[in-house]
Amino acid sequence: MIVIETIPDMAYLRNNLKEPVGFVPTMGFLHEGHMSLVKKARSENKTVVVSIYVNPTQFGPKEDLSKYPRDLPRDLAMLEKEGADVVFFPSDKEMYPDGYDTWVTVDNLTKPLEGDSRPTHFRGVTTIVNKLFNIVRPTNAYFGQKDAQQVLVVKKMAADLNMNLKVVVCPTIREPDGLAMSSRNVYLNPEQRKAAPVLNKSLLLAKELFIGGQRDAAVILKQMTSLIQKEPLADIDYISISDTATLAELKTISQSALISMAVRFGNTRLIDNILLG
Amino acid sequence: MIVIETIPDMAYLRNNLKEPVGFVPTMGFLHEGHMSLVKKARSENKTVVVSIYVNPTQFGPKEDLSKYPRDLPRDLAMLEKEGADVVFFPSDKEMYPDGYDTWVTVDNLTKPLEGDSRPTHFRGVTTIVNKLFNIVRPTNAYFGQKDAQQVLVVKKMAADLNMNLKVVVCPTIREPDGLAMSSRNVYLNPEQRKAAPVLNKSLLLAKELFIGGQRDAAVILKQMTSLIQKEPLADIDYISISDTATLAELKTISQSALISMAVRFGNTRLIDNILLG
Repeated sequence: MIVIETIPDMAYLRNNLKEPVGFVPTMGFLHEGHMSLVKKARSENKTVVVSIYVNPTQFGPKEDLSKYPRDLPRDLAMLEKEGADVVFFPSDKEMYPDGYDTWVTVDNLTKPLEGDSRPTHFRGVTTIVNKLFNIVRPTNAYFGQKDAQQVLVVKKMAADLNMNLKVVVCPTIREPDGLAMSSRNVYLNPEQRKAAPVLNKSLLLAKELFIGGQRDAAVILKQMTSLIQKEPLADIDYISISDTATLAELKTISQSALISMAVRFGNTRLIDNILLG
Repeated sequence: MIVIETIPDMAYLRNNLKEPVGFVPTMGFLHEGHMSLVKKARSENKTVVVSIYVNPTQFGPKEDLSKYPRDLPRDLAMLEKEGADVVFFPSDKEMYPDGYDTWVTVDNLTKPLEGDSRPTHFRGVTTIVNKLFNIVRPTNAYFGQKDAQQVLVVKKMAADLNMNLKVVVCPTIREPDGLAMSSRNVYLNPEQRKAAPVLNKSLLLAKELFIGGQRDAAVILKQMTSLIQKEPLADIDYISISDTATLAELKTISQSALISMAVRFGNTRLIDNILLG
């Protein structure tokens, strides 16, 4: 496994990689969710490239950039074990040199949900993903369904900008008690950690209601909200039932729908989602 | 010479083109300025791709999109004669399908000069150039110095987004009387056409003053303005002496400088520029 820290080195190496090239962009502090993406990439490509980069432009001014968890030696050991070929680990100076001035934005699709709570977040995501795609030039790029809106936004960017690659979406990986895997779970204290599976529980409740024939979004949202509010440590940021393509809020679930949510436990903000229909 | 109208056809063909691939993006109605780019591309690449696309997103709501001159048969004959290999001629529906939602912006560098007069112009340019670069995947892309700010903005985008290509800038081509070649020159009536070389004359005056030792930007601008104002058909939009990297206005020309201008003749807006130092 080769670890590369500069863009020129990565560009040079890229010309000699065996096709197809699978790419997994990450912010490090890897967990089983990331590793499921690496496994999928390994099974579908001759070469697997993983990037580890905590991208500052996708954090808001009051968010957790400085304390975002990092553990490079552990990450590298996990990737080596999983058979990754190349790890791209650039510095901030490499990615955003002085005078950096270019931004990629997906407009309407980034306004609701996460975009509403984190107004500059997706501009940071689409910009860094665009840069990484240009540097790594993958055949296939792997993202987790846990970040449901990110997946839609990255797919939209790739389609609109006519990128020569395929975006592959992999299922959310969960802890045994149902909590979606996230690097941010490490922030939770024992009480919060015990309460956090309520996100998944509320999504399972929604699924049960849907399977039982309920199609009224307001009814489902009300029951989900009521379930989460029984958990005193949980503070709802949003719960939404939206169209899976446009993210417009739905009143009635007629076709496929995305149920997504952000819930705070103290200073820690967790997201989760489920697709229906 | 192959003419291609769809993105999938271009993507398929691209995989079989001989490297290096030179690319000349144009809005058609070709003149000797464009042909100088094609010649340069021909001399430096195994394959030459030219796009012809009047990009609606770089025109403002009150600008000349609908009446922008078009002559495809003539353009194709000129390109065939010059030895272009592929002409990419997509429709608006192909480039901006319903629900199109992604934009590429260079921020600070697009604020002054043309950006000040045409606030959405460069967002359209960088977005379409990004799309075309992803579709054509050129080794080298050719632009004319006549659009001085566009050249800087495209270079900045390519560098910031880590694009795997080289932006090549070619000199402005002029009519015998010094008027910079432009598809928009066709809008000029005979009197306006006769007056239009005053842009180049004012730039030559600036160069003369500079060679004579003048370094005070205000003095040079005053003399240029005075020369242009002697021409009753000319209406100055802006004249600027700016840093060649940042486009910040200069008071004193200490190193290299860009002198650029936009001048209206009736409804026709012409631009021109010269590099000093």
